[in-house]
Amino acid sequence: MDGKRVRTAFRVRYSETDRMGVAYYAEYLVWFEVMRGDFMRAVGIPYRDLEAGGLYLPISEARVRYRQPARYDDAIEVEAAIEGLKSRSITFTYKVERDGQLLATGSTTHIPLGADGHPRRFPRELLDRLSVYDLTGGA
Amino acid sequence: MDGKRVRTAFRVRYSETDRMGVAYYAEYLVWFEVMRGDFMRAVGIPYRDLEAGGLYLPISEARVRYRQPARYDDAIEVEAAIEGLKSRSITFTYKVERDGQLLATGSTTHIPLGADGHPRRFPRELLDRLSVYDLTGGA
Amino acid sequence: MDGKRVRTAFRVRYSETDRMGVAYYAEYLVWFEVMRGDFMRAVGIPYRDLEAGGLYLPISEARVRYRQPARYDDAIEVEAAIEGLKSRSITFTYKVERDGQLLATGSTTHIPLGADGHPRRFPRELLDRLSVYDLTGGA
Amino acid sequence: MDGKRVRTAFRVRYSETDRMGVAYYAEYLVWFEVMRGDFMRAVGIPYRDLEAGGLYLPISEARVRYRQPARYDDAIEVEAAIEGLKSRSITFTYKVERDGQLLATGSTTHIPLGADGHPRRFPRELLDRLSVYDLTGGA
Repeated sequence: MDGKRVRTAFRVRYSETDRMGVAYYAEYLVWFEVMRGDFMRAVGIPYRDLEAGGLYLPISEARVRYRQPARYDDAIEVEAAIEGLKSRSITFTYKVERDGQLLATGSTTHIPLGADGHPRRFPRELLDRLSVYDLTGGA
Repeated sequence: MDGKRVRTAFRVRYSETDRMGVAYYAEYLVWFEVMRGDFMRAVGIPYRDLEAGGLYLPISEARVRYRQPARYDDAIEVEAAIEGLKSRSITFTYKVERDGQLLATGSTTHIPLGADGHPRRFPRELLDRLSVYDLTGGA
Repeated sequence: MDGKRVRTAFRVRYSETDRMGVAYYAEYLVWFEVMRGDFMRAVGIPYRDLEAGGLYLPISEARVRYRQPARYDDAIEVEAAIEGLKSRSITFTYKVERDGQLLATGSTTHIPLGADGHPRRFPRELLDRLSVYDLTGGA
Repeated sequence: MDGKRVRTAFRVRYSETDRMGVAYYAEYLVWFEVMRGDFMRAVGIPYRDLEAGGLYLPISEARVRYRQPARYDDAIEVEAAIEGLKSRSITFTYKVERDGQLLATGSTTHIPLGADGHPRRFPRELLDRLSVYDLTGGA
């Protein structure tokens, strides 16, 4: 933990498992989204406030690498950081762990949009706050 | 099939199964919603047009009775009819079948709301069209 | 809180919302299941241990009454108790709240099955532990 | 359509939308899985038969590029082909379209596992059948 990473924890839900007995692969994107919610809260700007202010962060790209399966009721930890922050895009990177064992890694890239659906720049203040968590950046 | 019922068919998705190897119980409500979409299309007023016109049908009550489990890739048929139509509420009733075997039954009750979130009466024309499918009604 | 109820808390996920801007109606059944997981943990027998021991609790009936919508990131509390406990069935009852405001109520009834898919009686010890939380029962 | 691609079609479900009014990003992975089910059926070996025979295809990597949002009730078409087939892994590639407009692209890579959870080679006959759909391969 180097001050650039945020962590969140939860248990795998029964609804998230499939007949193979493990967490279904699409659920990892849901977990990433839960992580982003906690990330933005840690940054000091809850995502719902962002949307209330007319700034949306739709996803332009998502990737997941699955290493070990997660099972029902497993205590999962997700860690996130920023790995690319520009005025018009942001990339989050994620690690999914259970008891310190790496289960999956992934990333999502987002393009800030206004309520009108058009691309926007991140406001200066938000950019400054986010840059603190940028692994590739200054701060 | 007596002209008051509408049917739809689909296969159980892998994502809908759980570690017990069967379709997760909440998915039946998703299937009911898919059914309502096809129902309204059969009625001649696609639900998305209804919402586009400012009329929403949020659910006030839902019930499901589960008899036999559904499994991955099963060819499922859902049949729906109306079992209570008033100017300010509508109740749909559902049967879920596989090869003619009854898997589940259920119902959902909806309260028409306007875009402002306030209760509304069903417009006369919609009420007339829906009443054709009302098991308890005239038509 | 009278010792017969168990509570759990979480935030509404973005994935759980729909285009109406509120938590999708099927998600309440997912929340009930999360609640049951915490319930069984409070009872001292995690549900995953139950399944590992060959006892399953599939749902035979589910009901939800929706009163007020839940929105993204809302801090939700679910409270559950038992409202009918027999050797061959159990009914849980639920309240969903936000800041003390009642959003929804519901119930689920479960039939204990063995790994072979046949109905089973609850083991005596489990029945005793569960009866402590039975609103309609002794203890 | 060159004989190496398989297509499937469906409508966006209400449950798949989020408060932004569009299909939630994780749902594309569900659609890819629906596509794979239809793909294997076209290949002549339904995926459920594969699992019944003790061969599983868990995902080792998934990627999605989102270009345009999909909305409730949109008639979606997904097209898939194989873009890398080896004895111990397979990569599917996907296009998601609406009225010929490209909404998203993606890929998933799978590692064949036996019922014991250990890696397996694809059986010869399956490999032969799949190779017909391999964009990068011979056939």
